[in-house]
Amino acid sequence: MSFYIPDDTILIMRDWIHPHFDYRPERPLFLCVLSNTDTGKIPGVSAAGASPDLTDYTPSADAELVELHKIVTIPAIPESPEGATTPAVVTKAALSLSGIPSLFVTSGLRRKPAVPYVDMNGSPGSDIRFAPAVPDAAEIMDRSALLGKKLASLSDCIFIGESIAGGTTTAMAVMQALGYPGRVSSSLLDHPLAKKQEIVDAALDRCGASFGSMRSDPLRALKEVGDPMIPAVLGLLRGMGGSKVVLAGGTQMAAVLCAADAFGLEGDISIATTRYIVEDRNASFVETVETLGRSWYMADPGLDRSKMPPLSCYARGSAKEGVGAGGAVLAASLRGVTQQEIVEGADRVLSTVELPKR
Amino acid sequence: MSFYIPDDTILIMRDWIHPHFDYRPERPLFLCVLSNTDTGKIPGVSAAGASPDLTDYTPSADAELVELHKIVTIPAIPESPEGATTPAVVTKAALSLSGIPSLFVTSGLRRKPAVPYVDMNGSPGSDIRFAPAVPDAAEIMDRSALLGKKLASLSDCIFIGESIAGGTTTAMAVMQALGYPGRVSSSLLDHPLAKKQEIVDAALDRCGASFGSMRSDPLRALKEVGDPMIPAVLGLLRGMGGSKVVLAGGTQMAAVLCAADAFGLEGDISIATTRYIVEDRNASFVETVETLGRSWYMADPGLDRSKMPPLSCYARGSAKEGVGAGGAVLAASLRGVTQQEIVEGADRVLSTVELPKR
Repeated sequence: MSFYIPDDTILIMRDWIHPHFDYRPERPLFLCVLSNTDTGKIPGVSAAGASPDLTDYTPSADAELVELHKIVTIPAIPESPEGATTPAVVTKAALSLSGIPSLFVTSGLRRKPAVPYVDMNGSPGSDIRFAPAVPDAAEIMDRSALLGKKLASLSDCIFIGESIAGGTTTAMAVMQALGYPGRVSSSLLDHPLAKKQEIVDAALDRCGASFGSMRSDPLRALKEVGDPMIPAVLGLLRGMGGSKVVLAGGTQMAAVLCAADAFGLEGDISIATTRYIVEDRNASFVETVETLGRSWYMADPGLDRSKMPPLSCYARGSAKEGVGAGGAVLAASLRGVTQQEIVEGADRVLSTVELPKR
Repeated sequence: MSFYIPDDTILIMRDWIHPHFDYRPERPLFLCVLSNTDTGKIPGVSAAGASPDLTDYTPSADAELVELHKIVTIPAIPESPEGATTPAVVTKAALSLSGIPSLFVTSGLRRKPAVPYVDMNGSPGSDIRFAPAVPDAAEIMDRSALLGKKLASLSDCIFIGESIAGGTTTAMAVMQALGYPGRVSSSLLDHPLAKKQEIVDAALDRCGASFGSMRSDPLRALKEVGDPMIPAVLGLLRGMGGSKVVLAGGTQMAAVLCAADAFGLEGDISIATTRYIVEDRNASFVETVETLGRSWYMADPGLDRSKMPPLSCYARGSAKEGVGAGGAVLAASLRGVTQQEIVEGADRVLSTVELPKR
């Protein structure tokens, strides 16, 4: 018996960034869209926050960690029930080491962060099982397009990440509504995929939709079963036109790519994520992105070598991605930051981040 | 008897931009800080809004006009009691003609605009006669510095305007607290200077200050008698470090320059305004700026040739400046926009701007 080892796999093992990103941005910009969705509060669905109620605060805490090296809105650094720390720690390390500027964008966020942010307004997403999730998706897209156009005139390569607890479930719902099988990833080791599919089925039932039935009406898919992050990123992409954009995320950003395809959005849009997502056998990140004919990039943050358990557990499949960590690491590598520096930097961020006094 | 005519005056008559701005920005960015202050609601003080209560809405309406060519939050385009339309019309024309991107920043704003904006949080300014005006000035400065640093890495020349009704009175209070005589301008033909001085005197009395007594503690001056726009712009300047920045405004931005001097802020900071401010004999724009050793630029929007009374009245001293109009016109000129195009563009904006359906 023999195993066939695809060439790509060998490269993944060898290179910490794969494949080679053959463009050196002069004025890169890292954006991160922060949103809330009640779908993320369904017990057992999200690891972004130690309890469902805390998920409202996770995106703001992530933004504070990246921008201030300090957390203001909650008493502790966000972590998963399994003890994985937020990927914002990796993003922070990558952006600090590279000096790449970041800008946070809020879309349907309940609790605003204590950092400068661009507000797209919008309401938090509803629980997709019971109500249309994002009735104002069109308005969010329009406002985001306005911002995207401006930013594209300032930056020659924009990375776009997200922080929205529960976003993989809505991503899965949008992909299925649009007719993509796209299996999503999870920030939990023991992936609650059956639970997510149950939620997606209930949501599609509620609005009389089925697999692929909204393919020709992607806006309706966003409104009914999406979350406020998705129209914000799509609007940014629309506004950025043909500029170079790298979506920074895993299966949630893959869902955005699916929706971009359904909307007929063109341009130089690729996607970058962490090694942990690419290697997630439960998810179909690479397959989904390649089906769409888009380029994908993998960055290996090397957290297996971290000295700190809340980070080293990433290498065993906890947390995996979020807050644009994979894209931020790729962006940093383009400025000469090494994998070793990322690991050490992430350890340093985690051990020095300032927490509110109790 | 003979008159001495300074060389400068002759040049002002001849050139619509004066003096020559000898830098051609590659990636200019136009910022505009939106704030509210209750000082602006003192009857008779501000022309930015047909009535004192409407001044809360003026900045957002200005932003909507510039970004959307449409007004959403109030039923009509902001205008002064004398019938002058908001200078946002000129700003909109200049930015549209030149394709220069704009970004709005809110600081202590009550009514948020229906456009993307970066929020600095902060509370609206209090009436300086009765209470410390901006207790959170330090926090606003810190947050704005964070934003300024990012933007400076994206743009090689940043113009910063403002929209805050009643801002000349707080500007005057800050200048006097810091020891600058700086006579402010007014958007009203019949300048209520005595009324403003009465307010400033009451404010300084309230906090036990006198002319120049806060020179060594500029933060206290901002907190006690300023408005939320001033710390936001100062924070931006601090964050932008040595980058090229052009303050876009009249005596309010001159007050910011005074405060920047008191804070010891250095860097390539100049100021640009309209001809109507430079020629305002009640105000001391040029004198104040030259005392500080900063460069000033004048742009003549040529509104004497406007076909529309709400704009042509600018040439007789109504409105004069605001929403960064002078700086926006200067910026547009650097991209080859002519004075004639500005006049025609402003007329076109005023006659085509979309208003809410009643």
